[in-house]
Amino acid sequence: MTADADHFVDRLRREGASRYHNEHPFHVLMHEGRLTKEQLRQWVINRYYYQTRIPIKDALIVAKSEDPAFRRMWIHRVQDHDGTDESEGGIALWWQLADAVGVDRSELISCQRVLPGVRFACDAYVNFVRDASLLEAVASSLTEFFVPGILQQRIAAWEKHYPWVRQEGLSYFRSRVSRAQRDSTQAIRFVTTNAHSAELQDLCVAALIRKTDILWCLLDAIHLKYVWNAEP
Amino acid sequence: MTADADHFVDRLRREGASRYHNEHPFHVLMHEGRLTKEQLRQWVINRYYYQTRIPIKDALIVAKSEDPAFRRMWIHRVQDHDGTDESEGGIALWWQLADAVGVDRSELISCQRVLPGVRFACDAYVNFVRDASLLEAVASSLTEFFVPGILQQRIAAWEKHYPWVRQEGLSYFRSRVSRAQRDSTQAIRFVTTNAHSAELQDLCVAALIRKTDILWCLLDAIHLKYVWNAEP
Repeated sequence: MTADADHFVDRLRREGASRYHNEHPFHVLMHEGRLTKEQLRQWVINRYYYQTRIPIKDALIVAKSEDPAFRRMWIHRVQDHDGTDESEGGIALWWQLADAVGVDRSELISCQRVLPGVRFACDAYVNFVRDASLLEAVASSLTEFFVPGILQQRIAAWEKHYPWVRQEGLSYFRSRVSRAQRDSTQAIRFVTTNAHSAELQDLCVAALIRKTDILWCLLDAIHLKYVWNAEP
Repeated sequence: MTADADHFVDRLRREGASRYHNEHPFHVLMHEGRLTKEQLRQWVINRYYYQTRIPIKDALIVAKSEDPAFRRMWIHRVQDHDGTDESEGGIALWWQLADAVGVDRSELISCQRVLPGVRFACDAYVNFVRDASLLEAVASSLTEFFVPGILQQRIAAWEKHYPWVRQEGLSYFRSRVSRAQRDSTQAIRFVTTNAHSAELQDLCVAALIRKTDILWCLLDAIHLKYVWNAEP
């Protein structure tokens, strides 16, 4: 990469890292082992709605590209979540997580207990991707930079603090570590190749910030309902 | 299928067949062996733009579905055209067709000689799919009912009338016969299962008619420019 590209990547990492939801109070409680079973279950139920949006927003990104090579690269993201049959893929692994924390699977899948604020934030992500340029849509995925870090922290925290969660429940988190590394490498290569002006780089940074806002708001809604409002 | 579903499928087949572009004057000339080399080349160049829209509209259809099972079923259509590497898939087979009729591949890929009317019709298809319901978008794909028939006719006609086209150029047409059968079977099952009111059935028929209009207009633009305007 050129010096300019290096500088741009540093900027993306810095702007993203400073807003990433690993610092959200709800994640802090989660990783310190201070969530109740019910709070953890509500996180699984609400975050599931975000999970169901991923293949949809990724198919929208595929549809934005005129380049078969890009589409071949990106389409595996849809398949990573949907799987090649009902028993595998990221969505099926989230069902397994729900089983492991004691959430009824059909209740999870119905999404009926998803909080309005969670729904609005996740839908805002899909709408952003639908309306944005391909470059901005790809840039918004760059929160994946930070996924391996938060997931390694999460796996360790859950093993230590929530031993009542069955081990196979953590398979989704484990599976995402290497995939997020591969995905963010592909995305950063696309973004640095295509954001060839200061204006385009600014749009990419703004897209990434928008995405961190979405992830943050999702946790705000859960925190407000199940932490603040639950306190006596 | 129920009697109502049978009746609905008959209606779709009838409305589609009566408007399908196998009867378009340009296809009649093509299949009677009356096109010049230049006219056949222009068809390859212009129809290519339609081919490039297929994975885009299919990715949009994938993004419309909330059902991982549907998305798993439909996503293979994107991959049928894009392939798993640059050397295969429907788009690569069209490049092979261009080679076989003597069209420069980079000129084909540039789409610079695509006629405005062709572009408008193809873009209208993508826009329709983007804005329509999932049900209507799937119904618009049902022109695939008629693809095996027209392709068998085309392959026989090209072998007989255009022996200067190298055989490997026909691989795309050959590959589509069985795939169109599989695809239309999947689509008709979805449409008959989900169009469970007279109003929804009407929307499906209208979507299919819209699609036949798009295919017809594409050929109108080619016919006007390269048949009518070419006559002395």
